[in-house]
Amino acid sequence: MALDQTRCALIIAPHPDDEVLGCGGTIKRLANAGADVHIAIVTKAGEEAFGPDVARIGREEAALAHACLGVRATHYLDFPAAALDTVPHATMNAEFGRLIQTLRPDTLFVPFLGDVHRDHQLTFLSAMVAARPRGGQGPARVYAYETLSETNWYAPGLTPAFIPNVYFDISDTVDVKIAAFTMFSSQIRAAPDERSLETIDALARLRGSTVHRSAAEAFMLLREID
Amino acid sequence: MALDQTRCALIIAPHPDDEVLGCGGTIKRLANAGADVHIAIVTKAGEEAFGPDVARIGREEAALAHACLGVRATHYLDFPAAALDTVPHATMNAEFGRLIQTLRPDTLFVPFLGDVHRDHQLTFLSAMVAARPRGGQGPARVYAYETLSETNWYAPGLTPAFIPNVYFDISDTVDVKIAAFTMFSSQIRAAPDERSLETIDALARLRGSTVHRSAAEAFMLLREID
Amino acid sequence: MALDQTRCALIIAPHPDDEVLGCGGTIKRLANAGADVHIAIVTKAGEEAFGPDVARIGREEAALAHACLGVRATHYLDFPAAALDTVPHATMNAEFGRLIQTLRPDTLFVPFLGDVHRDHQLTFLSAMVAARPRGGQGPARVYAYETLSETNWYAPGLTPAFIPNVYFDISDTVDVKIAAFTMFSSQIRAAPDERSLETIDALARLRGSTVHRSAAEAFMLLREID
Amino acid sequence: MALDQTRCALIIAPHPDDEVLGCGGTIKRLANAGADVHIAIVTKAGEEAFGPDVARIGREEAALAHACLGVRATHYLDFPAAALDTVPHATMNAEFGRLIQTLRPDTLFVPFLGDVHRDHQLTFLSAMVAARPRGGQGPARVYAYETLSETNWYAPGLTPAFIPNVYFDISDTVDVKIAAFTMFSSQIRAAPDERSLETIDALARLRGSTVHRSAAEAFMLLREID
Amino acid sequence: MALDQTRCALIIAPHPDDEVLGCGGTIKRLANAGADVHIAIVTKAGEEAFGPDVARIGREEAALAHACLGVRATHYLDFPAAALDTVPHATMNAEFGRLIQTLRPDTLFVPFLGDVHRDHQLTFLSAMVAARPRGGQGPARVYAYETLSETNWYAPGLTPAFIPNVYFDISDTVDVKIAAFTMFSSQIRAAPDERSLETIDALARLRGSTVHRSAAEAFMLLREID
Amino acid sequence: MALDQTRCALIIAPHPDDEVLGCGGTIKRLANAGADVHIAIVTKAGEEAFGPDVARIGREEAALAHACLGVRATHYLDFPAAALDTVPHATMNAEFGRLIQTLRPDTLFVPFLGDVHRDHQLTFLSAMVAARPRGGQGPARVYAYETLSETNWYAPGLTPAFIPNVYFDISDTVDVKIAAFTMFSSQIRAAPDERSLETIDALARLRGSTVHRSAAEAFMLLREID
Repeated sequence: MALDQTRCALIIAPHPDDEVLGCGGTIKRLANAGADVHIAIVTKAGEEAFGPDVARIGREEAALAHACLGVRATHYLDFPAAALDTVPHATMNAEFGRLIQTLRPDTLFVPFLGDVHRDHQLTFLSAMVAARPRGGQGPARVYAYETLSETNWYAPGLTPAFIPNVYFDISDTVDVKIAAFTMFSSQIRAAPDERSLETIDALARLRGSTVHRSAAEAFMLLREID
Repeated sequence: MALDQTRCALIIAPHPDDEVLGCGGTIKRLANAGADVHIAIVTKAGEEAFGPDVARIGREEAALAHACLGVRATHYLDFPAAALDTVPHATMNAEFGRLIQTLRPDTLFVPFLGDVHRDHQLTFLSAMVAARPRGGQGPARVYAYETLSETNWYAPGLTPAFIPNVYFDISDTVDVKIAAFTMFSSQIRAAPDERSLETIDALARLRGSTVHRSAAEAFMLLREID
Repeated sequence: MALDQTRCALIIAPHPDDEVLGCGGTIKRLANAGADVHIAIVTKAGEEAFGPDVARIGREEAALAHACLGVRATHYLDFPAAALDTVPHATMNAEFGRLIQTLRPDTLFVPFLGDVHRDHQLTFLSAMVAARPRGGQGPARVYAYETLSETNWYAPGLTPAFIPNVYFDISDTVDVKIAAFTMFSSQIRAAPDERSLETIDALARLRGSTVHRSAAEAFMLLREID
Repeated sequence: MALDQTRCALIIAPHPDDEVLGCGGTIKRLANAGADVHIAIVTKAGEEAFGPDVARIGREEAALAHACLGVRATHYLDFPAAALDTVPHATMNAEFGRLIQTLRPDTLFVPFLGDVHRDHQLTFLSAMVAARPRGGQGPARVYAYETLSETNWYAPGLTPAFIPNVYFDISDTVDVKIAAFTMFSSQIRAAPDERSLETIDALARLRGSTVHRSAAEAFMLLREID
Repeated sequence: MALDQTRCALIIAPHPDDEVLGCGGTIKRLANAGADVHIAIVTKAGEEAFGPDVARIGREEAALAHACLGVRATHYLDFPAAALDTVPHATMNAEFGRLIQTLRPDTLFVPFLGDVHRDHQLTFLSAMVAARPRGGQGPARVYAYETLSETNWYAPGLTPAFIPNVYFDISDTVDVKIAAFTMFSSQIRAAPDERSLETIDALARLRGSTVHRSAAEAFMLLREID
Repeated sequence: MALDQTRCALIIAPHPDDEVLGCGGTIKRLANAGADVHIAIVTKAGEEAFGPDVARIGREEAALAHACLGVRATHYLDFPAAALDTVPHATMNAEFGRLIQTLRPDTLFVPFLGDVHRDHQLTFLSAMVAARPRGGQGPARVYAYETLSETNWYAPGLTPAFIPNVYFDISDTVDVKIAAFTMFSSQIRAAPDERSLETIDALARLRGSTVHRSAAEAFMLLREID
């Protein structure tokens, strides 16, 4: 199915802002084309580990960013941030499964298995279980997205590398993507940090130029059924 | 772009029948949906190496098979069969490039780099050159297909393995695919040969059941721009 | 050692029926040739997660299937199903180690690391620890088997792919394999489900035809010492 | 050896401008630090294939670019461009071997095996032969560099992917790199072409930000002996 | 940076003796050249699992070995041996992070992700998190080392293989390495055990001869910033 | 089939001595157990490239070495050494095919695709074509062997790595292997060259100790049919 004919897309993000870094321009394109776009934020920053305000701020920022991007609904799963390895695998699988069975997305975006953050890895693993094509169910298209400050910091030659095979043209939405990321004022860093606006822009330009577009987001297709 | 919205597809086959083994059911789906489907047969069986009639028979069989499948046109490139390593790389690139610039397919199917036959490997390499997205040109979607009696006979762990990420449902066209292959009477072998009708059927059933369909053809997506 | 000269084989199955899907025809060949074949069922379906009868039914079915196949003994390790990630790694290692030290199999079959089910992955990891050739001990041959509805549902390009290098001819035992799987009436699904009898048959035919046999089971050899 | 202590570096470039795209900033750093930097241009654009002026223009542009970068000497090997597959492997090996034995570089930069251009692949293969550590000879450090419009256009999952493990900080030399590329006026393209100044800049920024530097060039280390 | 210009190196070893097996000769070279070499021993053998004296003996042996090698300081992290999977990932990350922030090593050595021991794998994963180049921090060079009786016992084709790209010449220090390992009298085994002095010597000779040196230790470079 | 029950083995060696470096101890075990062992030497050193005596000397040395090892027959294919890329692929395939059809080996040993020498790579590719299991023919077991001074000199992360899964115990024949290599007086180098007797010994000890044997040769199994 062409991107612009997507009926319902679900983006699973370990932490608020991952969905914008990886798919912000694509989300806006999907919303513009009339798709229902849902975001699932997997974790919540616990007070003990992160202080009293981090979770609240993250949600406020996400609300603003998601409004920019035309997101239909944001789902907070409230698993403990930076501690998904303490959650039983079956518990996460079940929660993701419920979400997929409720929303019935035809298109699913998951974080990349090779990201250095264990929360990203475990989110990937549970999402792949929930997305199985058992009984003809499961999303028809599953993509992994890249996340600045996670994807490029792992172990070359030992952990999976992000080698994209899909490029979504975001020439018309890259500005909104960057505007949406600007809402995460607690997360923006000055260049040359990977989480700077300049680096987000550089990545979009590079991914775009690979396919002769002004800007693009790149993905690894994991499964398509047509 | 969804398969059924393809405007023009080009299947590059090293030898006649590869296109049917790898994409027969998909070709028929494409033709049914109104796409222009073109086949390029890369090689011609030389008289010296293969005897006087092999080339002629192959073309007659292909003509029948392609008629079954609703192919728009078949293009014979006439490079020497089982001898593509004696053809300069630039010569093949140029020929493939001309074909792509003439037909402007939005969807391209190429044989698999990991096939044991050197003709398949070299066809893949030149096709990837011709399909580059330079200047915004090149097909928007490029897939590698699998070929019974080639793909499963290479070197596990050393040469590329066929690990599909795309499944096209051929439940409604698998019978035509098998009928089309039946036209290649010079190529059919009795089971348990991989080139038997039984094995073609078994592969279609297996690939289908992976995504809960009666029959499917599986592919590796190499590039999609949308 | 040739398959038919195996003295003692141990198949480690995360859940009842995995051993039949992956190795059923090979098990029967081994038993026919006089080997002692042992099955270790790693998990037990807990009442809370799976209902009161699932574990009992699974064992009754396994008993019938294993009788079909000529299995010498079935060992139930009773770790919690779909929850092996909650069991300490050392605990599983120790249990597998005890079994291997007791039975001293020369041939070991383990599930595939790239299966989508976490129980399969963790079973693989502990089995590889228990099978180490430390001090000259450990099985002389270790194989990973494929499991329909697990092996083909993972992440192409990111998680390990099943790329077989060993084919055991089950032309004479594929019927018994399918009969044995029929005993798992709680697990059989109608085609085109991967766990259907038709798909089991299609896979056996495909794997067979790759090596010009009527039916085969395929494996990845992980270690052989001779 | 730290980059700034390099005595003699050799960059092997299939065509003029590859060395600047892949290593321009690093070359300037090396020159600034006092290293002898040599460039070997492997091919020459033949008149028949490329027209009467291409070779001459390429050399004039290279001369200007290399002057910018402080290159000590440029070596033209004059193998036929876009036709290295017609040159015997041993002939290229011998030529590269002579150069390495004459210059005795401690640091060698080679194009990336996974580039889509066959000339790049064959240059890599011969360079690796010439760089063997036989008899204690050969460069102490060998790196592969990435080339815009070659490295990102190959076959994800089938051909080698560029997964860098070395980052050379070019914050102070990226401007000179871009100035040097500007000398190749026959090669510059407008954005969003990969060979545009904007994309060269975007790549440098992205590679830099991965390691928190304003700009970097990324490499794959193939061998280091210390 | 050349090895002999290292300011401060940290070797993270899951259990006492891993650091000697993997890096003993390199440690001595570093110490000889004036670097501060720190060892972090991640685990402690618990009394319940290993008996009352194992932890004490391991430390006494390590103290002798580290004295041989000129180690500046040894840091005992006291996580439970053979049970790192029961420690929250964030806890290990934090401990490794503190060590790196305190010592500010420019060079980090970590065990290999593909070792069969889960403690090695989890040590690797946490070390890579702690070594991220966030904010310009983190070691400038990160290497994975190989460990006899761990690295060669895993799953070929399924788990990461140790494919070295860096060779440190230990011709002058291999004798001290072996002497240091001799201090671990509780760990030495008779040949042909991998933990025998003969095998340590054979590996050093083999790795050396690959680069025409009398003895070497081999590593995989994971990241270098220069 | 266990090694000691092999009926007929064929070792394909690009140049004389590769077969001894990779399989010498295994050849002797096979001969001792009564197998017919055939060696095919693929290339002949041309006078122009190598001087007048190299080919003659190589054969005399091989004759002595093969006598040591109990080889039944040595087949000289006389393709040009260091120039297999100038031989049409089909020509080599045909020659290898004839040999396999004549000898009908049940066990085939081929050089490793990842060796740095192009002759090794091309020998591998043609041997895999000739060994296809088409029509139920082809050897039941195909192994790749490692070659000192070739296998360890290629491109980590880019070209295939030798990751063995089979270990043949040569404790009783390693001395004969080394004696056989001593016959190649034109090829022996002093340590620490990889082609020294010391390195051959170190490799045998290391491979052995991995599986707790005094000496072993390691292989990658590419196909086994049983």
